[in-house]
Amino acid sequence: MHSNDGSESCTDVLIVGAGPAGLAAAYWMAQYGIDARIIDKRGTKVFTGQADGLRARTQELFDSMGIQDRVSRECKNATEFHHWNPDGKGGLQRSAGTKFSKESYFKSRFFISGLNQGRIERFMLDAIKEAKPDLEVERGIIAETLECDEQLAADPESYPITVKLRALSEEEANPSPAYGSSGVRDGLFRSNLSPDDWEDLVNKSKARAGATEVVKAKYVIGCDGAHSWTRKQLGIKMEGAATDSIWGVMDIVPISNFPDMRHSCTIKNDAGTILLISRERGLMRLYISLASADDPSKPVDRSTISLDMLKTTAQQILHPYEFDFKICDWWSAYQVGQRVASALSDPADRIFIAGDACHTHSPKVGAGMNISIQDGFNLGWKVASVAAGLSPATLLPTYALERHPVARRLVEYDRHWSRLFLPAAERRQQQQQQQQQQQQQTAAAAVASTAVAVLGKTETETETETEPEKTKADDFASISARFEDFAQGFALDYPASVVVDKSSSSSASTSARHRHRHCRLIPGERFWPAKLTNQADGRGVWSTAAMRSDGRWRVVVLAGDVGVGVGVGRPRQNTTTMARVAALCGELERRVVPRFGGRKVVDVMAVHCGDRGGLSVFDFPRLLRPVDGERGVDYDCVWVDERVEVDALDRHGEAYAAWGVDREAGAVLVMRPDQCIGWFGEMEDVAGMERYFEGVLKPVL
Amino acid sequence: MHSNDGSESCTDVLIVGAGPAGLAAAYWMAQYGIDARIIDKRGTKVFTGQADGLRARTQELFDSMGIQDRVSRECKNATEFHHWNPDGKGGLQRSAGTKFSKESYFKSRFFISGLNQGRIERFMLDAIKEAKPDLEVERGIIAETLECDEQLAADPESYPITVKLRALSEEEANPSPAYGSSGVRDGLFRSNLSPDDWEDLVNKSKARAGATEVVKAKYVIGCDGAHSWTRKQLGIKMEGAATDSIWGVMDIVPISNFPDMRHSCTIKNDAGTILLISRERGLMRLYISLASADDPSKPVDRSTISLDMLKTTAQQILHPYEFDFKICDWWSAYQVGQRVASALSDPADRIFIAGDACHTHSPKVGAGMNISIQDGFNLGWKVASVAAGLSPATLLPTYALERHPVARRLVEYDRHWSRLFLPAAERRQQQQQQQQQQQQQTAAAAVASTAVAVLGKTETETETETEPEKTKADDFASISARFEDFAQGFALDYPASVVVDKSSSSSASTSARHRHRHCRLIPGERFWPAKLTNQADGRGVWSTAAMRSDGRWRVVVLAGDVGVGVGVGRPRQNTTTMARVAALCGELERRVVPRFGGRKVVDVMAVHCGDRGGLSVFDFPRLLRPVDGERGVDYDCVWVDERVEVDALDRHGEAYAAWGVDREAGAVLVMRPDQCIGWFGEMEDVAGMERYFEGVLKPVL
Repeated sequence: MHSNDGSESCTDVLIVGAGPAGLAAAYWMAQYGIDARIIDKRGTKVFTGQADGLRARTQELFDSMGIQDRVSRECKNATEFHHWNPDGKGGLQRSAGTKFSKESYFKSRFFISGLNQGRIERFMLDAIKEAKPDLEVERGIIAETLECDEQLAADPESYPITVKLRALSEEEANPSPAYGSSGVRDGLFRSNLSPDDWEDLVNKSKARAGATEVVKAKYVIGCDGAHSWTRKQLGIKMEGAATDSIWGVMDIVPISNFPDMRHSCTIKNDAGTILLISRERGLMRLYISLASADDPSKPVDRSTISLDMLKTTAQQILHPYEFDFKICDWWSAYQVGQRVASALSDPADRIFIAGDACHTHSPKVGAGMNISIQDGFNLGWKVASVAAGLSPATLLPTYALERHPVARRLVEYDRHWSRLFLPAAERRQQQQQQQQQQQQQTAAAAVASTAVAVLGKTETETETETEPEKTKADDFASISARFEDFAQGFALDYPASVVVDKSSSSSASTSARHRHRHCRLIPGERFWPAKLTNQADGRGVWSTAAMRSDGRWRVVVLAGDVGVGVGVGRPRQNTTTMARVAALCGELERRVVPRFGGRKVVDVMAVHCGDRGGLSVFDFPRLLRPVDGERGVDYDCVWVDERVEVDALDRHGEAYAAWGVDREAGAVLVMRPDQCIGWFGEMEDVAGMERYFEGVLKPVL
Repeated sequence: MHSNDGSESCTDVLIVGAGPAGLAAAYWMAQYGIDARIIDKRGTKVFTGQADGLRARTQELFDSMGIQDRVSRECKNATEFHHWNPDGKGGLQRSAGTKFSKESYFKSRFFISGLNQGRIERFMLDAIKEAKPDLEVERGIIAETLECDEQLAADPESYPITVKLRALSEEEANPSPAYGSSGVRDGLFRSNLSPDDWEDLVNKSKARAGATEVVKAKYVIGCDGAHSWTRKQLGIKMEGAATDSIWGVMDIVPISNFPDMRHSCTIKNDAGTILLISRERGLMRLYISLASADDPSKPVDRSTISLDMLKTTAQQILHPYEFDFKICDWWSAYQVGQRVASALSDPADRIFIAGDACHTHSPKVGAGMNISIQDGFNLGWKVASVAAGLSPATLLPTYALERHPVARRLVEYDRHWSRLFLPAAERRQQQQQQQQQQQQQTAAAAVASTAVAVLGKTETETETETEPEKTKADDFASISARFEDFAQGFALDYPASVVVDKSSSSSASTSARHRHRHCRLIPGERFWPAKLTNQADGRGVWSTAAMRSDGRWRVVVLAGDVGVGVGVGRPRQNTTTMARVAALCGELERRVVPRFGGRKVVDVMAVHCGDRGGLSVFDFPRLLRPVDGERGVDYDCVWVDERVEVDALDRHGEAYAAWGVDREAGAVLVMRPDQCIGWFGEMEDVAGMERYFEGVLKPVL
């Protein structure tokens, strides 16, 4: 802690919990240079086990954070999925599997990948440290009280929140006992089978008069997990219910003659179900259904759960194949349940919750950590930009507006997915339970749409998507297909708001509306990634890496076909298009960019589809080749959508076709700091773009 | 040093010089766990500047060493090359350039890349440390005397070499003055314009009674650069000559409006020539021809060379474009010359030289560091394997046999290439000089072929390749094309010897000879890289990474089309082919592998082109799925040549087609530890393979 017993200090943002959601939020504090703190009740970070599934969009975001190459190097891609069922003769047989599809690859170059949470947190911590070396996680610190002065909250400069922090002793902060003599860490203490230990820890620390500190904060972000203490202080309820199903999970190096032991697959027989996930370093993760040893139809007695019991159950399910292990990295158990928080913030938008604090579900869909990271990634820059004085506080309600529907859809996905792992009888029983839940949820959705109305929005389509739907075919393939775009993070579905302007295309001319009808660059969705070629040096870079998540808004000029040249110095430019680009850049340079704080707040880059060889950066407007006194021209502002025949790394070109952007007309868009499109329009609609910026940034001129 | 004044110690291998060649040799000492030492007279490693061009084969070797991903992350690929010439109106114009070709990509997925030597040495040092943490470079140490007891040399267990080492003072070991007030390191002290300072350093250290140590060694490897002290101790001469051309070189961040300032290109006008090389971190490397300021036809006065002078000359050549810089990473100057050592070892093959100690030339072809690394990579494992007692000493003469022709071809390449940068008059003058050199070289080749005959070899084709040849078109494109396979490292051309058995195919049946006539897997050449799919988990891995340079010989079973299955457990195997694979593996398991030291000396893997989905590793012989008590089955012995439609990383499949290996017949080969093919034959020719192993490994049974 910064100070000792009873002392008081101020911080702009306090993040409670340093898991994936908390670290994603902290990443933005580092990028914006915010005076922030991040605390965690545990004495050490997670090293093994926990979440491990990485979806495509998360990897795209990691690319924009500069850490994806480390992930790619260590992770295990899951490109195929198999299913094993009883063969009717006491054995198992493989039925048709699924493969990573061409369609999916068209949407993103990243596969679903497995890598343990410990490594992912390591990479995020390193990215934070690189941008702001003094923003370190303070471990073994717990929050004890939280108060918010509602009157003060009206003043954006005030510190309305008071949090009392308490330092835990080493024993309190490190509760995990080693497993048997092997020294394997079990993860039960982080499992939802364990009772919440927050109050207990606070009381213990009080009893021995542990050091305390009072912190005054402008904003608090609670990323403190399924038992979220922050959520409880706000009185936010979790809606939904648990089932009786209990699952074990372990990361082991298998010794087995099961033919698919290095493959991701499901194995189902009378003894139960295993979900097998292929992992890095020879590890396999097994999710194993657990039932009472005496009566398989009854729930397991929680006190009997042990690593040996998990092994025995796995052996029964994998019979007649052999299964054993000597190396276990981590194991745990959890109860299946699906719950969503009734709100994601306090009414004043000073205190927020993100990650597991908002949505709890079974881990088997491999999406939880992703959604948590994306929660933190959505919330962090908004809080940071407001705290830095760059943006108005009206940005803040858009967090819940955008992420609450995602949380609901996540648990809906999990509800369908988890049900597939149950025996038929149990499945029916759960469906009944869930009808009740869905009724509750419909009520919640009504409340939410009221909230939206209060914010001046009428958009509710995203809400209707969470309505119960008849599952056409109750199997893995159809559930996967139905939720794939959501689970991979391809479909964000963010509604219209101050940060998402959906009106730009409708205000344009009829021809423009027609032209961009099939456009895949949609406000409220991700910027569809493309491999771009650098105009100046010809190197290929993915847009996710070229457009770094550095806190800046980014005007992306889709300049179209600016010319067919015959050699540098003698270009036969498409003078009409180049003149339009010049006019746009002139207005951006004179008016828009300086008005909203200059290039350190609003960056500008161009992607054209002309002939690179016939052009040089000096053919483009000055705004697209800024000069630094020491480093010369910034050559990374002009990019080309170019078909490259050979590339050692991956595909190139045809970005305009993938985007659905007309090569003659071009377009221009604004990308938010979190890689989501905020505004899209014609190159001539500078006024429309400026209006959008007026809503999200405070003009300085 | 291990010990102080006058004390004596023993080491198996002493490496003098820790540049790229020395580190490549040391890499093998670490892999084989050899008691070795590596010393360097400089007090610190190279951090900036020096060599920077990486050719494809070097990157393939780095991949097998586990460091290429770090290189790929930092380097700048050069996929295009432009040429600028006077436009006749006092300006410059771009003529047609060259692009990285599809043919080249077919040969290797790696481009020519630029990254400074300091980073490359860092990665190699890390790889050494990972395998043998105690093998660290001892810096600021110089060798003073070297003696070899010829009588002792006959006994392989003896330590016939005595070297006296001397510790330098900090000033002696770090001679570089800072440039001006900017603190830029100039590299002149490492340049060939500087006199050799070895004797001077020894004498200085003697005068102040610096600490000394006497080391007894089995082998010494001199990687001590162009002025090689080791070479002088052996009385080996450098053959060839210097020209009058002097060039400056600098790594800077340009401030310029030259359109191709981020491109690799040549710029030529009356003021001289620049070779511009695109680099990492916004750096550009400029090679600049230097001439007398008073009379451009005369050589430059060496005493006038400075960074400012380089800048002024570059400005004149780039006129009318502007050129300046504030950031200079490194600069130096050198005299163009091409020389080859008359021998690469002492007659007893106890003391070797590698790298610049064997070949000096201008740096502009971007191949020098590559050839040096490949020298060390070729020599290191041979010395290590003999020192470890695994191989007979008859391996050692093959170093010179294989690498001497490469050294000659390198300077021939440089001679042609460098000439292109000269004005016409100077070019004619050089050609005359070089005729003399070539006469000398022909004499040297005669000596070398005598040496080969002494070793019992009659192969001299590689020698004839270094004969002078009429250049068809004296331009960059034709010279590049003529030398590309050599410069990229695709053509090794190693002659027949104990480590390269060229007889295997000729001893086979006529049909087999016909079958493999177009085979690209040739003894004496690299193993043509392919992207392989893992049988067990479906992940794609390049062969260069799958076949790690870990010191083992590798039997690669090209099992062919082993089957078309319909599901695991019910494969319709190609029983004939599978039976042949089983027979081969049975003999390898019973006889060959144990006879030569077991799997830690001779590894076995298979690449088949059957249907992966219908097979599992358990369909393959036991040798291809070894089981470890702790880690279970080793799933990395069976690989598939499989056409994969989508892959986020790169191309897949069609390896058999690229290799020219018959899918029905299959084949088997032995890869040497240095990724070069040693033997190739039919699956039935186990006896032939065994004979090959008898020549290179000492049987233990």
